[in-house]
Amino acid sequence: MAQKLSTEAHYKSLVDQYDTWLFDCDGVLWEGNRLISGATEVLAYLRKIGKSVLFVTNNATQSRKSYKAKFDKLGVEAHVDEIFGSAYAAAVYLSTVLSFPKDKKVYVVGMSGIEEELREEGISFLGGTAPEDNTLAPFSLEHWTPDPSVGAVLCGLDTSVNYTKMSKAFQYLLSNPECNFLATNGDSTYPTAHGLLPGAGACAAPISTALGREPLSIGKPAGTMLECIKAKHNFDPKRTIMVGDRLNTDIEFGKNGGLSTLLVLTGITKEQEVFGPKPSSTVPDFVTQSIGDLRALI
Amino acid sequence: MAQKLSTEAHYKSLVDQYDTWLFDCDGVLWEGNRLISGATEVLAYLRKIGKSVLFVTNNATQSRKSYKAKFDKLGVEAHVDEIFGSAYAAAVYLSTVLSFPKDKKVYVVGMSGIEEELREEGISFLGGTAPEDNTLAPFSLEHWTPDPSVGAVLCGLDTSVNYTKMSKAFQYLLSNPECNFLATNGDSTYPTAHGLLPGAGACAAPISTALGREPLSIGKPAGTMLECIKAKHNFDPKRTIMVGDRLNTDIEFGKNGGLSTLLVLTGITKEQEVFGPKPSSTVPDFVTQSIGDLRALI
Repeated sequence: MAQKLSTEAHYKSLVDQYDTWLFDCDGVLWEGNRLISGATEVLAYLRKIGKSVLFVTNNATQSRKSYKAKFDKLGVEAHVDEIFGSAYAAAVYLSTVLSFPKDKKVYVVGMSGIEEELREEGISFLGGTAPEDNTLAPFSLEHWTPDPSVGAVLCGLDTSVNYTKMSKAFQYLLSNPECNFLATNGDSTYPTAHGLLPGAGACAAPISTALGREPLSIGKPAGTMLECIKAKHNFDPKRTIMVGDRLNTDIEFGKNGGLSTLLVLTGITKEQEVFGPKPSSTVPDFVTQSIGDLRALI
Repeated sequence: MAQKLSTEAHYKSLVDQYDTWLFDCDGVLWEGNRLISGATEVLAYLRKIGKSVLFVTNNATQSRKSYKAKFDKLGVEAHVDEIFGSAYAAAVYLSTVLSFPKDKKVYVVGMSGIEEELREEGISFLGGTAPEDNTLAPFSLEHWTPDPSVGAVLCGLDTSVNYTKMSKAFQYLLSNPECNFLATNGDSTYPTAHGLLPGAGACAAPISTALGREPLSIGKPAGTMLECIKAKHNFDPKRTIMVGDRLNTDIEFGKNGGLSTLLVLTGITKEQEVFGPKPSSTVPDFVTQSIGDLRALI
């Protein structure tokens, strides 16, 4: 049973128990370009009392560097080495776990964030933001020469997704059983300040439907992201808490990694899903309305 | 157990048993723009000996009228009232089964074939080929005013599918539980002369993934298509045979409708799937290599 936090004593006890705080961003710190009230003050307070603060996002539209610009714009302190995105985790997965050969390329269904992270890891790619693949012109296999060096397809949220990209990605996977099929994350929706839009999982869905198999998803709740964090930061899982708004990504991610979990209700998950008559099977350790609630301690 | 046909006596017996012959087109009569060898002669022969010939296709990119032009171009005799497409069946489903109100509109993720069939049934629509929805420009809910008269989303194969269409369709369905979610058909792939491309099922997948529920699929193997045919043609199911290349659409469609079924191996299904060590649970009555095999009778 999740513990609902509401008093100063609750928050004091929480802060005392955990040294490392992992934060999801969309729906926790902000919604689109609107900060969640109190988020900045709470993060500053946690830093002030000596806590480690890390940001763990499935958002793969931006690289860590561009994502840092968003923190800056919203006035939230963050450093690039504190930010872990699913595009970064996917690039690290390719270079370390798969030892992706230097002469191979990744076909990208996604945006510049994926391209920047692949580039940082020294991985060649095509598709993505390339003008020839960002078109609504008719696509025919007759007039296409596949690149034989493609060894992986990587899908993320792509607001320029189109039939040409879907078709090329599908053909690379269909024609070569050795071609890896990866997704930055499986989030079915993407929260914006004005409502939900289709997420990375929705962008990969045409390819997985045509192919009849699912991609390996790298972001939360998969453990790959935690491996990336562990490679850069020391932390004791017993004294680490994951703060998120989604049961099936953030909270599952924390539980899979042996971390404690705090659900906030400023994003996707509604209180009903935890405390209602038919609660989700994913149970966070703690629930609070908003990260801003921790201002009770300031 | 399916009967494998190969001798003149087999084909003679087949032709004697059935008065009405329903044909799938892609993978049976042609592949892309390439006729299957012998298809024209066999169709002409069946007509000559007094058989009824009908064409039943899940292809919703074209209306029956434009589809007839394809028959003409390939030199295959066909009449508009012999052609049944899933775009037509979807339009008929909306106007008859749903009694879709005249003041409501359908949001179309699809091509001109769907628009033409909706227009013929007097149903208003938006999306589809409208220039403002055929764009790769960024989409934001902030700058979009949904049309409150949208009462259904209809998805078909759309080679101009993009994030704006996916997002609008998703939002219409998400914001209004009364909004009908229909698909012309669920084919995951679309066969062309040069290989497979993502099909209508793949184009609907981003929306169903984001939404967390599947559309009602109108084309084969659903019974709606057969209802449309019954409304226009008299036939005795016991003396009717469905000829197709896909087990999960054509053959299922025939079996669901109480028709006999003939699988040809010139399209999606491989012989192994019927006679191999792990055969599909969908068993056609008859199997032959190609529709052209019936030339043995000519």
